[in-house]
Amino acid sequence: MYGFSYYTPTRVVFGRGSVDTVGELVKAQGAGRVLVHYGAGSAVKSGLLDRVERQLQAAGVPYVTLGGAVPNPRLGLVRQGIELCRREGVDFLLAVGGGSAIDSAKAIGYGVAGQGDVWDYYEHARKPAACLPLGVVLTIAASGSEMSDSSVITKEEGGVKRGCNSDLCRPRFAVLDPELTMTLPAYQTACGCTDIMMHTMERYFVGGDTMDLTDGIAEALLRTVMKNARILMTDPADYDARAEVMWAGSLSHNGLTGCGISASDFACHGLEHELGGMYDVAHGAGLAAVWGSWARYVYRDCLPRFVQFAVRVMGVPEQSTPEETALRGIEALEAFFHEIGMPTSLRELGVMPSDADLALLAHKCAAAAGGQKGSAKVLYEPDMLAIYRMAR
Amino acid sequence: MYGFSYYTPTRVVFGRGSVDTVGELVKAQGAGRVLVHYGAGSAVKSGLLDRVERQLQAAGVPYVTLGGAVPNPRLGLVRQGIELCRREGVDFLLAVGGGSAIDSAKAIGYGVAGQGDVWDYYEHARKPAACLPLGVVLTIAASGSEMSDSSVITKEEGGVKRGCNSDLCRPRFAVLDPELTMTLPAYQTACGCTDIMMHTMERYFVGGDTMDLTDGIAEALLRTVMKNARILMTDPADYDARAEVMWAGSLSHNGLTGCGISASDFACHGLEHELGGMYDVAHGAGLAAVWGSWARYVYRDCLPRFVQFAVRVMGVPEQSTPEETALRGIEALEAFFHEIGMPTSLRELGVMPSDADLALLAHKCAAAAGGQKGSAKVLYEPDMLAIYRMAR
Repeated sequence: MYGFSYYTPTRVVFGRGSVDTVGELVKAQGAGRVLVHYGAGSAVKSGLLDRVERQLQAAGVPYVTLGGAVPNPRLGLVRQGIELCRREGVDFLLAVGGGSAIDSAKAIGYGVAGQGDVWDYYEHARKPAACLPLGVVLTIAASGSEMSDSSVITKEEGGVKRGCNSDLCRPRFAVLDPELTMTLPAYQTACGCTDIMMHTMERYFVGGDTMDLTDGIAEALLRTVMKNARILMTDPADYDARAEVMWAGSLSHNGLTGCGISASDFACHGLEHELGGMYDVAHGAGLAAVWGSWARYVYRDCLPRFVQFAVRVMGVPEQSTPEETALRGIEALEAFFHEIGMPTSLRELGVMPSDADLALLAHKCAAAAGGQKGSAKVLYEPDMLAIYRMAR
Repeated sequence: MYGFSYYTPTRVVFGRGSVDTVGELVKAQGAGRVLVHYGAGSAVKSGLLDRVERQLQAAGVPYVTLGGAVPNPRLGLVRQGIELCRREGVDFLLAVGGGSAIDSAKAIGYGVAGQGDVWDYYEHARKPAACLPLGVVLTIAASGSEMSDSSVITKEEGGVKRGCNSDLCRPRFAVLDPELTMTLPAYQTACGCTDIMMHTMERYFVGGDTMDLTDGIAEALLRTVMKNARILMTDPADYDARAEVMWAGSLSHNGLTGCGISASDFACHGLEHELGGMYDVAHGAGLAAVWGSWARYVYRDCLPRFVQFAVRVMGVPEQSTPEETALRGIEALEAFFHEIGMPTSLRELGVMPSDADLALLAHKCAAAAGGQKGSAKVLYEPDMLAIYRMAR
């Protein structure tokens, strides 16, 4: 078993009405002036933004607002946010939205607290040394960014999607009210559930030793998300199912499901990032579209994990060979993806890349990873190309 | 499902050799002068204390030391520690040991940061408003105090054992090196495993709604502890088994296994605290000694939980009635306790209270709880007396 560090300082306030604590939470952080950063129109239309602003006013905390964070959040808006924060003397960020608003806020936080070009951190040219403190009011269960050390930003020129990980950006608090997610369309809900599952699976399908307790937690989380995703496909306003998925989203990416492993895999995330950067597809759908092909490409190198997954998570009975059991598990998860309306190929994702496009995707994916990526099986550019081809 | 808050700011550094990071960890906290607080002679004899002191010296952090924290840690030593810290200008506490040293350090932290008598916090006469920051080098997997908000102290006069819970005392960091626990005798190892399981079970056997994800995590944790406790009974130096138990200990009491429940139970802890205060028994053994009697007294009021526990945790096949399944689950856990050398009665615990003693225990237990305790079933003084009688 491998050593690990675990650090999840985010104060979680979970449940109905928790939004109404946000003024006090911000005040307790000693915020002098807040940037409320949100996404598309839904936070405005639903009245959530008004509700948050009223809370800040009641707590006597001055604030400015910046909307417009979109899925695959853009560097341009981050730069705009940094400028606004500097001009207005903002010392605390409040993200209201899903992963896009949170990741965008984290990038703004790095930019305001640092010097030079914020994109350097995402290109790994420099490491961030500080980040403005931030809090979150979450409206989409998916990215886990509300407790994670991760932020992913897309640079418009070239469609380059890159991530920066550092404990500095872990939110000070996260307000998780499942009611805020009830109106999310089925497709986005399914994308979120897929992303949540993938954050755990990227830590589950790994080489080297693992840990019983982490496995048990990961398997329980995956089963819980599948069960409740199915409920939400027919009853999107089921509060308990929304709550299960929301809490799973936070635990799936805060580090808990990766304790005691040598290194996480995150190859599917790498493969998807290039699709997201080039075609602006929904992140969860992009992950589902490549997962099966990735799994079939790597499972022989990580066979005991795929067998354990098949039996304990997908409920597959042991077959005559471990390979057969593993493949049945992969098929079962693909069937689940279809059941919740997720694609299991690029074609189903609505993307039809040419051979040249695939070569470019694989080249960018390898470059972003510094040449190689993966723990279940280490992938190089030719492997990535092969998986993209299988996924087409 | 109930709302909840979740706050686990402790930075965990887990694995072989993690002790050698303690100097840097203390320094990163900005400590000016440290009190190293430890327990009985084992930290000295094993050379651990020397190793910690060398780390502090290398990091250039001045310190003073105070040993002597015993199981059921005493108020007298806490007062001595408070005085020492004030005299020496200590601003950071480093507990080296198990739950006793940590809980004692937490109490010292409350005392130094507050005014008036520290015992007031434990009698719930006043709430603590501050606590000196503290870090932990853990040597016993059991109490979960290394990540918890809890501290339990025993007042010598009257043998009164009382707890104080507050986020203020959650350690800033916890160094968890499973190798430090390898030399622990079988009896203490078993006590620790029992305490760990009970911290989750006190949150599992509850009335009202529960949460799928929390249940899955709790059940995985309980199965993991049982599996690895059995390994440690025959191979106490199995590193992986020590690691599984150690991490389970931290997760079991940091709040994770209680998310989404109405209220935790903690009646067995209440019943044991009086035994510990009066007879100075090992905490884990005391819990095992009363659990079966408590379970048989309350299971009809919390039947679905006892059935789920029997099936999912103890692997009991469904019987003809839920009551029968529940009882088989209780018997199975008692059999496990015996297997690892734990008592399932007061007699086996080595305690033979008279009727008058039992009445006094029940009276003190009810008084400490403000008259009633429990969530699986709310217990009053006559219930507590009945359970003590059953356990005799």
